[in-house]
Amino acid sequence: MTRLLFKSDLDRADLWTAALKKHKPDLEVEVWPLRAPEPAGDRSAIDYALVWKPPAGVLKTLPNLKAIFSLGAGIDHLFGDPELPGDVPVVRMVERGLTAGMTEYVVMQVLYHHRRMLDYRAQQRAGVWDELSFVAPWDRKVGILGLGQLGGDAAEKLALLGLDVAGWSRTPKEIPGVASYAGAAGLEAFLARSQILVCLLPLTEETRGILGAETFAKLPRGACVINVGRGEHLVEADLLEALESGQIDSATLDVFAREPLPADSPFWSHERIVVTPHVASITVPDTAAEAVVENIRRIERGEAPRNVVDRDRGY
Amino acid sequence: MTRLLFKSDLDRADLWTAALKKHKPDLEVEVWPLRAPEPAGDRSAIDYALVWKPPAGVLKTLPNLKAIFSLGAGIDHLFGDPELPGDVPVVRMVERGLTAGMTEYVVMQVLYHHRRMLDYRAQQRAGVWDELSFVAPWDRKVGILGLGQLGGDAAEKLALLGLDVAGWSRTPKEIPGVASYAGAAGLEAFLARSQILVCLLPLTEETRGILGAETFAKLPRGACVINVGRGEHLVEADLLEALESGQIDSATLDVFAREPLPADSPFWSHERIVVTPHVASITVPDTAAEAVVENIRRIERGEAPRNVVDRDRGY
Repeated sequence: MTRLLFKSDLDRADLWTAALKKHKPDLEVEVWPLRAPEPAGDRSAIDYALVWKPPAGVLKTLPNLKAIFSLGAGIDHLFGDPELPGDVPVVRMVERGLTAGMTEYVVMQVLYHHRRMLDYRAQQRAGVWDELSFVAPWDRKVGILGLGQLGGDAAEKLALLGLDVAGWSRTPKEIPGVASYAGAAGLEAFLARSQILVCLLPLTEETRGILGAETFAKLPRGACVINVGRGEHLVEADLLEALESGQIDSATLDVFAREPLPADSPFWSHERIVVTPHVASITVPDTAAEAVVENIRRIERGEAPRNVVDRDRGY
Repeated sequence: MTRLLFKSDLDRADLWTAALKKHKPDLEVEVWPLRAPEPAGDRSAIDYALVWKPPAGVLKTLPNLKAIFSLGAGIDHLFGDPELPGDVPVVRMVERGLTAGMTEYVVMQVLYHHRRMLDYRAQQRAGVWDELSFVAPWDRKVGILGLGQLGGDAAEKLALLGLDVAGWSRTPKEIPGVASYAGAAGLEAFLARSQILVCLLPLTEETRGILGAETFAKLPRGACVINVGRGEHLVEADLLEALESGQIDSATLDVFAREPLPADSPFWSHERIVVTPHVASITVPDTAAEAVVENIRRIERGEAPRNVVDRDRGY
């Protein structure tokens, strides 16, 4: 008997249980009661944990855990637990629903700024019929910070649309149609060309605050910034200042240092900022359950699971 | 010596002359003076005309014309001339800049409605942080009316993003990942599945007014309509009524029966309509000149030019 503990205060346990059992009918799914501080059942019977923001200290009390699956692409919600078991593999969520949703969002927002839709929407409100300057796709330079599962797919799709796409990552990547810049040495040249900058980095000590004054100053004047990584990637005050000075023309923000975004945040009413409430992409239970079950099967066959977090690099 | 007459009151003759001469240095480009009723030079010396909305009756006065090139994808501006020479091939503008620009615009607008950005923008204005329902791309049914150069490319790119795409055309088309519906017999089933309907048809007597009450009633309730064809495809009053009843949820309109859109049009201030001033795509001089020159070379070699309008079908 294989037993999985499901814990999330944001996701519907009934949908997830059904999706998991569809792909592995003999899986026993134990749902950690909503908002309860502890799971309810026999802890030694738990083989796997599928979790979003579990309370710190609890995962280490599951003595027979074979893997910890994150419900989202980010794993910073797990590594905040100082007692996270060191010997249990932590698996990032990689599934085609999450990837496709993020690519949709990034493609939409890049095109929205590329085609000056903030200006066209303002013209519509003012009743103005005026053709604004048009930049051919191959003359528009887009830069993707982070070329993992999500950044890599978004970059590839933007390149297929004919945009001039580059990506920046820790190590060089080969993606069709995408120029690769890598490491600290490659960052400056990458930023210097990025008219539209998209952040899809994991949150680590190295990437925290990367969207700040120093980075903005290295972008071409009038650049656009899209943050779909984590709120902590962005130095919020620096963005407001760069928008004020014209160094940054406009931005789309889906993630924030504090969520929900506080009512008094100047972002809500800023004319040059598109705000969405952390909805760029979501894990889709059906396709995600398939990915989790595939990894459980790998472990049961004695194989290493896919998409395990490398704790040294932090993602 | 090959001589081309350039005529447009909207496009910059200097950019076009330079682009044409870049691709064919020995081409003589004669510019029809801006807003003049007649060309200025020796009419018998003109081999080719590259035109946007030339005054009716003038093209027939060019006795040695070998081809008429339209500056835009649409050719309705030429066939409004009752004296258009019947024996000179009329060539549609097919060039990668125009195609890429249209695909960008269509992809952006489809994703904008698919991802409920009108609602998220309204939430931002109201300071509301609320996650709205999410539809996975493969559960979103997009329908493209018209699978020519522009519609076909947009359909293919939307399918690459994972959306469930179908297209409707006069005759069946094979496009990777795109379901094909054809002719009058296929229209009803195509409309019944199209949650987001995009019009990229040529304007002909058969397609005029196709975006009207009868079509809207056949769409799924709450569908979205994007018109990037011609203003005359849309029955404007029918759209307002369908939005009022909820049969149509929202729309993007780039083209209008009267352009510029009159100041008293209810479209300007409609909450559920995105208005842009006929900018979905433009012909890019460099890539377009390359396409025109390639066709001139074909004619000089005695070959048939590409993308000639079939006058019987009207596009």
